[in-house]
Amino acid sequence: MQRIAFCLRLKKGAGEGYDKAHREVWPEMLALLKGAGISEYSIFRRNQLLVLSMRVEDFDTTWDAIERDPVNTRWQEMMAQYFEPLEPIAPGERFPMMREVFYLA
Amino acid sequence: MQRIAFCLRLKKGAGEGYDKAHREVWPEMLALLKGAGISEYSIFRRNQLLVLSMRVEDFDTTWDAIERDPVNTRWQEMMAQYFEPLEPIAPGERFPMMREVFYLA
Repeated sequence: MQRIAFCLRLKKGAGEGYDKAHREVWPEMLALLKGAGISEYSIFRRNQLLVLSMRVEDFDTTWDAIERDPVNTRWQEMMAQYFEPLEPIAPGERFPMMREVFYLA
Repeated sequence: MQRIAFCLRLKKGAGEGYDKAHREVWPEMLALLKGAGISEYSIFRRNQLLVLSMRVEDFDTTWDAIERDPVNTRWQEMMAQYFEPLEPIAPGERFPMMREVFYLA
């Protein structure tokens, strides 16, 4: 099982709308995430900074499957209004991934 | 049980040293954290950004206890060289806390 985290940035003033959308995530979007094998998925926010962390068997395979699903496409289209463009990412990176440098069970 | 996250910032060039220190955390520091009731404690890093996330019964009480322990004092003295000053925090905040805006078990 992988413990994964990556960071995203919201546009200024987008925090409220983003939070609200995440209090009302569509049941079919929750089912998609769950069915794809994602668990212990937290999104933390401070001002414009978001950190998304989760457990998943294999992040890349799982996220490929999620991105093929039209439910995710619709969700991401709705979310796009809130995000700043991605910060520069390394070749092969899907998101600005954070590396786990310490873990205590 | 609370799921807690906060963010810290490293000085430029401090990443390597910080990572190395966290591959070799003192056994007495690990025992202190564990004994205080912290679990599933991950530190994620991307460049200068750190996100620390953990589970704990009550963050403030637990962190008070950790900060009273001389092992923690010694550890923090060793870590201080790596950190940028804290970003502005709200009154009563101990760290730049991140709020969990979404959770999927």
